[in-house]
Amino acid sequence: MLIAALGKLPGIGPRSAERLALHLVQTDTDVVRQLAQALLTARERIQLCRVCGALTERQPCAICDDTRRDAALVCLVERATDILSIEKSGTYHGKFHVLGGKISPLNGVGPEDLRIAELEARFATEPVKEVILALGTDVEGDATGHYLAKRLAAKGVKVSRIAHGLPAGSGLEFADELTLSRALEGRREIQ
Amino acid sequence: MLIAALGKLPGIGPRSAERLALHLVQTDTDVVRQLAQALLTARERIQLCRVCGALTERQPCAICDDTRRDAALVCLVERATDILSIEKSGTYHGKFHVLGGKISPLNGVGPEDLRIAELEARFATEPVKEVILALGTDVEGDATGHYLAKRLAAKGVKVSRIAHGLPAGSGLEFADELTLSRALEGRREIQ
Repeated sequence: MLIAALGKLPGIGPRSAERLALHLVQTDTDVVRQLAQALLTARERIQLCRVCGALTERQPCAICDDTRRDAALVCLVERATDILSIEKSGTYHGKFHVLGGKISPLNGVGPEDLRIAELEARFATEPVKEVILALGTDVEGDATGHYLAKRLAAKGVKVSRIAHGLPAGSGLEFADELTLSRALEGRREIQ
Repeated sequence: MLIAALGKLPGIGPRSAERLALHLVQTDTDVVRQLAQALLTARERIQLCRVCGALTERQPCAICDDTRRDAALVCLVERATDILSIEKSGTYHGKFHVLGGKISPLNGVGPEDLRIAELEARFATEPVKEVILALGTDVEGDATGHYLAKRLAAKGVKVSRIAHGLPAGSGLEFADELTLSRALEGRREIQ
């Protein structure tokens, strides 16, 4: 049963699950109890920020609550974990909003299933000037971006999207055709 | 000797070289003769275009010679093979120029080792308005880009660089910090 439960975790296959389970049953009971307690506490405490939808232990989350961050900028991401990716880059000082997925008619996900109304509600209480779409660059991400650009522009905010192009540390020989055509199209003048 | 010669080809290790050699010595002599002849002919015929530095069988190359292409745009690439990558994307209709590498003090490559003077010479005979830097996004590519932007701007041409950002079909979770910070920095307003 432990093996089955562990095997459901992402990135852990049947063999890893077996190895983990064998390790756990041979470990000191106290250590296992601590791990179990940590799992439960984390699950109980972590909730979605009621403003931005990020994972947080307090309401609102530390980012929404940080007055030093630029409230005029809201970066829209698909998943709460995307916030961590952007925070690691260390160059963004605005706020975030988690969409909770992307529009995907094939999977039955429409605009009403995403946290778009919650975003629009923020425009009334926060001085939002620009929404930066930081969505994936696949077909669904692009479609969601187009939909949002139209819908949000009608609300009077500036809508931008992060650059599509050559990733850092790469050469032209590793880029696919679509990336290259977007990189060329999105070229910027060097002043 | 054949194994050693084959093993020097890119992407062919000792095992592949052995397999290829064994195959070749058991192949019909005529087929081998044809292959050898094709190698020699290609090596004799292929030369660098004296205008742009691309690999070509005629002077100037088909792209330089194509009057339907926009002569106001010159896309600057590191290697002749980069032209193929961009041509495959099918969205670029300007001309090219091969730099022949990038500035790399550690490897003893300075600006004078690259085909920069050849590019500047083209400004006198061609109606070049914009040079698009399509270099790799590593440290040396960036440094070369900065150097060229300064040098070419003094010649009165507009200098731009292809977009750095999220590659096509990717999500934020696969992007490194530097790519994300460049993607955010290079964000574009959606009209």
